[in-house]
Amino acid sequence: MAGNNKKKAVVLLSGGLDSTTVLAMAKADGFEPVCLAVSYGQRHSVELDRARRVTQAMGVKDFRVVTVDLRQVGGSALTADIDVPKDRPEDELSHGIPITYVPARNALFLSLALGLAEVVEASVIYIGVNAVDYSGYPDCRPEFIRAFEQMATLATKAGVEGTRFEVRAPLSGMTKADIIRAGVKLGVDYSMTHSCYDPDGEGRACGRCDSCVLRRRGFEQAGVADPTSYVKGA
Amino acid sequence: MAGNNKKKAVVLLSGGLDSTTVLAMAKADGFEPVCLAVSYGQRHSVELDRARRVTQAMGVKDFRVVTVDLRQVGGSALTADIDVPKDRPEDELSHGIPITYVPARNALFLSLALGLAEVVEASVIYIGVNAVDYSGYPDCRPEFIRAFEQMATLATKAGVEGTRFEVRAPLSGMTKADIIRAGVKLGVDYSMTHSCYDPDGEGRACGRCDSCVLRRRGFEQAGVADPTSYVKGA
Repeated sequence: MAGNNKKKAVVLLSGGLDSTTVLAMAKADGFEPVCLAVSYGQRHSVELDRARRVTQAMGVKDFRVVTVDLRQVGGSALTADIDVPKDRPEDELSHGIPITYVPARNALFLSLALGLAEVVEASVIYIGVNAVDYSGYPDCRPEFIRAFEQMATLATKAGVEGTRFEVRAPLSGMTKADIIRAGVKLGVDYSMTHSCYDPDGEGRACGRCDSCVLRRRGFEQAGVADPTSYVKGA
Repeated sequence: MAGNNKKKAVVLLSGGLDSTTVLAMAKADGFEPVCLAVSYGQRHSVELDRARRVTQAMGVKDFRVVTVDLRQVGGSALTADIDVPKDRPEDELSHGIPITYVPARNALFLSLALGLAEVVEASVIYIGVNAVDYSGYPDCRPEFIRAFEQMATLATKAGVEGTRFEVRAPLSGMTKADIIRAGVKLGVDYSMTHSCYDPDGEGRACGRCDSCVLRRRGFEQAGVADPTSYVKGA
């Protein structure tokens, strides 16, 4: 199209704080973002609504949703009937693999992103994994990302034909406060974003799950007012 | 449970000739199979019915279906509105990447199998890719399978804790005729299996798509009577 020579990049978007920041970074890097949200039977379907609002607010022209029903796989508090933990002491948050871990989730999400990248002729995929996450989630570690890139190039027609796929995880190594500061500089409106594992019917955050605790602390440490809508008393 | 100390293995099952043979091989290797069928918006939903019949006939106790809606990704004659080619000359079948290629399909299927393997505590995954396929499909090549194993071990909690995931592709290097002969020896009833890309409303095979042509030729070359139900005149 006339006036648009931008290269495309696929951005995995959940509508959360991290992936929304990554979307702003992909745009700042000069890419035309093709956003992919994965609906995987997560309890908090409010995420998808937020993802859609984020794409509208940020001028994304191509937003796609892939639905994957993981209930028959199970194994996570986010897809099965396991209670989401609340009010855990802060020093527990960064140790061990949380029960909200979804087995092989990032391998799955990146595989979906890879298929889409091949279809839209993008070679770059953005994913919002970060330092706080990868202390607990194995599939947030840089060595996983590198192994995925190797596999991706061998997995695809585009790879056979010479494309080398690159997975960018620009939040890797950043704290939540770093991410918020970077996003604010890029003009991200965090009031649209959603992080809570256990929101109420109106999509208000519980304020007490691990994800809420990390998010709240991030705003505090960044010195940025927290625009999140929390349930009363949280 | 008493009397059952078998190790589990996840078997990707489509209800087709290849994956049904692989299921028989996994059982012969001494595993308790956990079968995973992926419903990905393929035109031929008859596959899933066949997969279920196969698991029932072969005494599989654990059969799971994951639904992935790939229509918003597109890019394949199997998920989009592209015509399935018919009556191609045989010498074209093994050249180039077919339009029935689904972008990054095996990366996606194996990622789903990996998540399930982690949940059921299996370290072995069986997949029915074979020599005829990998001339055309990049994600059927042994080097892809090896790269996936590397990634899998880094992607998972189980991998962090010491499990090394193994992807077995026992049909790799076998022709269709070899596969049929091996399956017949293991007692596989191929009348239950389905291969056609474009079956009619009753699930009868068209006899003319690439998959039917390869299957028919396989039975001929194996010297085994073809039990497939074809549409009239095919």
